[in-house]
Amino acid sequence: MAELVSIVLAAGEGKRMRSQKPKVLHEVAGLPIVSHVVGAARAAGSRDVAVITGPGHGDVRDAVRSADPDATFFEQLERKGTAHAAAQARPLWEHAQGYVAVVYADHPLLRAENFQTVLDRLDAGMDAAILGFEPDDPTGYGRLLTDGDSLLAIREQRDASEEEKKVGLCNACILAFRAEVFRALIDKVGSDNAQNEFYVTDLVELANAAGYRVGYGIAPEVDVMGVNDRIQLARAEGLFQKRIRSEMMHRGVTLIDPDTVYFAYDTEIENDVVIEPSVYFGTGVTIEQGATIHAFSHIEGASVGRGASVGPFARLRPAAQIGADAKIGNFVEIKKAEIGRGTKVSHLSYIGDASLGDGVNVGAGAITVNYDGYNKHQTKVGAGAFIGSNTSLIAPVSVGAGALVAAGSVITKPVDADALALARAGQVNKSGRAKTIFERAAKAKAEKSRG
Amino acid sequence: MAELVSIVLAAGEGKRMRSQKPKVLHEVAGLPIVSHVVGAARAAGSRDVAVITGPGHGDVRDAVRSADPDATFFEQLERKGTAHAAAQARPLWEHAQGYVAVVYADHPLLRAENFQTVLDRLDAGMDAAILGFEPDDPTGYGRLLTDGDSLLAIREQRDASEEEKKVGLCNACILAFRAEVFRALIDKVGSDNAQNEFYVTDLVELANAAGYRVGYGIAPEVDVMGVNDRIQLARAEGLFQKRIRSEMMHRGVTLIDPDTVYFAYDTEIENDVVIEPSVYFGTGVTIEQGATIHAFSHIEGASVGRGASVGPFARLRPAAQIGADAKIGNFVEIKKAEIGRGTKVSHLSYIGDASLGDGVNVGAGAITVNYDGYNKHQTKVGAGAFIGSNTSLIAPVSVGAGALVAAGSVITKPVDADALALARAGQVNKSGRAKTIFERAAKAKAEKSRG
Amino acid sequence: MAELVSIVLAAGEGKRMRSQKPKVLHEVAGLPIVSHVVGAARAAGSRDVAVITGPGHGDVRDAVRSADPDATFFEQLERKGTAHAAAQARPLWEHAQGYVAVVYADHPLLRAENFQTVLDRLDAGMDAAILGFEPDDPTGYGRLLTDGDSLLAIREQRDASEEEKKVGLCNACILAFRAEVFRALIDKVGSDNAQNEFYVTDLVELANAAGYRVGYGIAPEVDVMGVNDRIQLARAEGLFQKRIRSEMMHRGVTLIDPDTVYFAYDTEIENDVVIEPSVYFGTGVTIEQGATIHAFSHIEGASVGRGASVGPFARLRPAAQIGADAKIGNFVEIKKAEIGRGTKVSHLSYIGDASLGDGVNVGAGAITVNYDGYNKHQTKVGAGAFIGSNTSLIAPVSVGAGALVAAGSVITKPVDADALALARAGQVNKSGRAKTIFERAAKAKAEKSRG
Repeated sequence: MAELVSIVLAAGEGKRMRSQKPKVLHEVAGLPIVSHVVGAARAAGSRDVAVITGPGHGDVRDAVRSADPDATFFEQLERKGTAHAAAQARPLWEHAQGYVAVVYADHPLLRAENFQTVLDRLDAGMDAAILGFEPDDPTGYGRLLTDGDSLLAIREQRDASEEEKKVGLCNACILAFRAEVFRALIDKVGSDNAQNEFYVTDLVELANAAGYRVGYGIAPEVDVMGVNDRIQLARAEGLFQKRIRSEMMHRGVTLIDPDTVYFAYDTEIENDVVIEPSVYFGTGVTIEQGATIHAFSHIEGASVGRGASVGPFARLRPAAQIGADAKIGNFVEIKKAEIGRGTKVSHLSYIGDASLGDGVNVGAGAITVNYDGYNKHQTKVGAGAFIGSNTSLIAPVSVGAGALVAAGSVITKPVDADALALARAGQVNKSGRAKTIFERAAKAKAEKSRG
Repeated sequence: MAELVSIVLAAGEGKRMRSQKPKVLHEVAGLPIVSHVVGAARAAGSRDVAVITGPGHGDVRDAVRSADPDATFFEQLERKGTAHAAAQARPLWEHAQGYVAVVYADHPLLRAENFQTVLDRLDAGMDAAILGFEPDDPTGYGRLLTDGDSLLAIREQRDASEEEKKVGLCNACILAFRAEVFRALIDKVGSDNAQNEFYVTDLVELANAAGYRVGYGIAPEVDVMGVNDRIQLARAEGLFQKRIRSEMMHRGVTLIDPDTVYFAYDTEIENDVVIEPSVYFGTGVTIEQGATIHAFSHIEGASVGRGASVGPFARLRPAAQIGADAKIGNFVEIKKAEIGRGTKVSHLSYIGDASLGDGVNVGAGAITVNYDGYNKHQTKVGAGAFIGSNTSLIAPVSVGAGALVAAGSVITKPVDADALALARAGQVNKSGRAKTIFERAAKAKAEKSRG
Repeated sequence: MAELVSIVLAAGEGKRMRSQKPKVLHEVAGLPIVSHVVGAARAAGSRDVAVITGPGHGDVRDAVRSADPDATFFEQLERKGTAHAAAQARPLWEHAQGYVAVVYADHPLLRAENFQTVLDRLDAGMDAAILGFEPDDPTGYGRLLTDGDSLLAIREQRDASEEEKKVGLCNACILAFRAEVFRALIDKVGSDNAQNEFYVTDLVELANAAGYRVGYGIAPEVDVMGVNDRIQLARAEGLFQKRIRSEMMHRGVTLIDPDTVYFAYDTEIENDVVIEPSVYFGTGVTIEQGATIHAFSHIEGASVGRGASVGPFARLRPAAQIGADAKIGNFVEIKKAEIGRGTKVSHLSYIGDASLGDGVNVGAGAITVNYDGYNKHQTKVGAGAFIGSNTSLIAPVSVGAGALVAAGSVITKPVDADALALARAGQVNKSGRAKTIFERAAKAKAEKSRG
């Protein structure tokens, strides 16, 4: 395969987002839009991926790097159009062999296959190839004016004749070139237009004028939708979710209501997992075969073992590792904790910075007290231990295997294996006293309402 | 602008709702249907809004008043039709200048613009003007029989000829008149029909017969949908939500899945707020710029400051005021409480009738004990204090700035600034005792299953 | 009515489900697919229902029996086709009077009405009758080749001529016969086809050849959708939910967003119940008139009394019985417990294996400690008692009527009526001590980050 350099144009401002954040940093399925595009470019075999950022957009650089440390960055200091932006990557295309692809960054549903569509045209002998699509309503898009296999020009809506406006094939978001053709033409693009900008789409007519052969490929509309405002962002999210949900079901995952299960771009789930409605997956989740995720669960950065049961109303936070056949019940939060095989944390607990062995039973309302306001401390609970309800385990602390912590205790000192730990005041009953107290409270209320 | 008196017909029974509650009290986006219509009438500039209620429907009066204290009410003691109902508002239209509009109350999506459409016709010289719409399927609706700009009659489905049934323009829900025209005709409406009722729609033919000029305007179908059963109620709710969601996104709010975020009619949200799926807003909520509302949050009557984080699984109840950059975490309920800037209530807490200063840290499971069965009492926590996990603050009580309440404590007395408060039984470990206890329990279980 | 024997073909493997579980055991609205079909057959008046299972599918038998103890089972040891499967029920059809219906098990939306459609044809004198439907896209389905009221043959897609492929009427999932006709033909079905299988659909041509009269009926497409993979399973679930939601609203239940309320096949709800978005009902639930179910509630096997309020964020588990006007609030789990009239469990509680009288108030974080690791024990709370916040009631234990349990107490001994019970360590305040502790922690943090 020919070497590929991809130039991702991410310098746009995106004013219609009405955001203090650059448009391409808004996320789809937990990943910034620009990283979707960079990922597709990389998956299509790009040796180099250049990202052109707007002035002061260091946060775009940081975000892209965290998903693709090998990406290269160029800043477009003045907003002078897409050709001017693409030209910034000069160090990469100056001596490039093979192909150069220019791609718009605001297309989160773009896939490697869409790159392949135009690269195939180059492989077939074209000097340049543009990705097109056939939208339901072409109004507003640049039209691809073709003659058989050849692309003659990209005509913007405002410049199109009535006849040209009837063309249904429109410009999508990838323009690919043989490297020497790109080099020969990029600096020849002019800015003789209403905006005084240099448009990368002008390369098509320049290439034709220079006698190069320009082709085109066609992508499904859904793959090439652009995001310009929050309504389109929500639509992109919905389409991306539909794509993942369908893949999940094909793999043998049961989604009772697919429309209310939200996956991240990287969620990994094995077959025979059943997911009830209203489940939210953040990034970094893996779920093993046969587990059940009940309704109203919120899971990110966590792993769930075979046959385990999570929720309803469970929150798994980063580095929660739930063992096989374990049970995480309702109103339970697990953070940075290993939960052993068959261990149960069934109700109203917070387990953080902890390691629980196999077969542990944690009672309702039991809490690991892991934070002193400055530092996080560890809790260790041995296999088969029983942590009573409403207990507080003040970390750092350990409870041995088979030990029993009595309900309501505050545990500050280690508990040996098989030992009972108690920290409890004795119960005192005062006969008739409740009556007196209630009478007094009722009287206070009456006085208050009298004023 | 001419003075406007609006008469809202809210006396219908709504049997198809199968409810013990009058139809117009069922809610859309947290507001009774009738109040949506009253609100639209008011927003359209009505000086007076008269609401005609059914016999014994004092609750309709109460509901309308709570949103519009200036509304006037008339009771229709017998159900004798819409013209008879409208006539009840005699004290308002008897001496009215300007215009009189009669509007059906069961149209929750009605907007000021829809009033304006018919008022414009009056301003243009018409003596009366009716709001029409063009439904996908006109079957069942009264047809507007027109001649150019003139409306000749409203023909009910049962009285329509085959030819008339083909008319696609139908009666919506507003009839507007010059006041003197309304006065001249309202008492002339007859009841010579199958139901022996007086129909306000007969005013159209009466007006034409008397030589008045009757016009019409056209509203979008979605604005004028009527609600007669719970399926239509759900549809109205869905359409209303769609309207708000779209507005929110245009303002710069991110909705990851717009279809599962439920707004009230009065929700106020600033830009760059991100709302995860499955969030429910009751009435009276404001959210400031840059806040994040995580999935599975239920928020009503509360305010959330800039950059704050709420949820997942958070419940904010009326008079919860969350400060800037504060964090309300999972399984936390806040009611009638001020939460300071940067303060964290991260897990499994109930904070009610309280005021927490800036930078407070509330541990998992900490609870304000605000209720003695009769009265609610206040809890005050100073800036920078640390409230340990599983603590109970028995109100009225105060914890000073920078103080530390040890985990598991029950606090009944005030704690000074920078002091440590403890209320905890000492821990006792009994070696090997857990083993004995478990053996005994296992034996009891075995006996039970045998016996 | 003629006697009816129904033979449910449930022996298929369902490889496209990618599951370790037989296809027909996957659930729709909480009931295995096969049980939906058995239920429809029973509701259509079947005296006997035979279920043909695949080899080793004892779990199918168990599942069907739990919903229909009178069903009969036959194992098809070799997969030799649908006619061979149906023949296994020989003991039932051998001497049957009346009708024999053969029905495919993987059609969870099938209803008694669909059976009636073909039985009506038999009643009208036909010897056999097949259920057809008219799919949007007939590709892949067996076509019904008809001549007026007569069905000539069922032609599989692969055997159909171009002309036959244009037929829009397709084979659904019920074939019904007069019993003697079925008996006369079933053993004559051959296996002279590509798969060497015996197809029950061949009975149609055999019957025609033998001079019997074969008719057909037509079912709505939605009733007869088959499930072959998880995408179709999700679609079936969605269609079934739509059916129930519509019924519920017609009965007078308010669903604010019907699309996010999930019913089980057996959910019973009375009128004027309001259900907020995102509510999940497992099987065995009844809700009485006027109750409100707030958003994010998960309810199974539970009953909710008149006017009660549940949620948001409530979990009702099997055998939770919520009394009239009771209130179950947020982050509360109720299991196997009677909750009295007007009793409130408002926040962060677990109540299991308990009985609470009328007018009890349970404070935030109060927990019944019902499990000792081996056995479940009972908690009893008398009418009007007040259980303080963060208390643990160690079962078996009882709290008398009107008693008061102080917040933070661990209760191990019975509390008499009107008595006050306390189990609390005294509070100690140490002046300035918090400051020292925080300074130490800050120092430790600093050292850690340095080191």
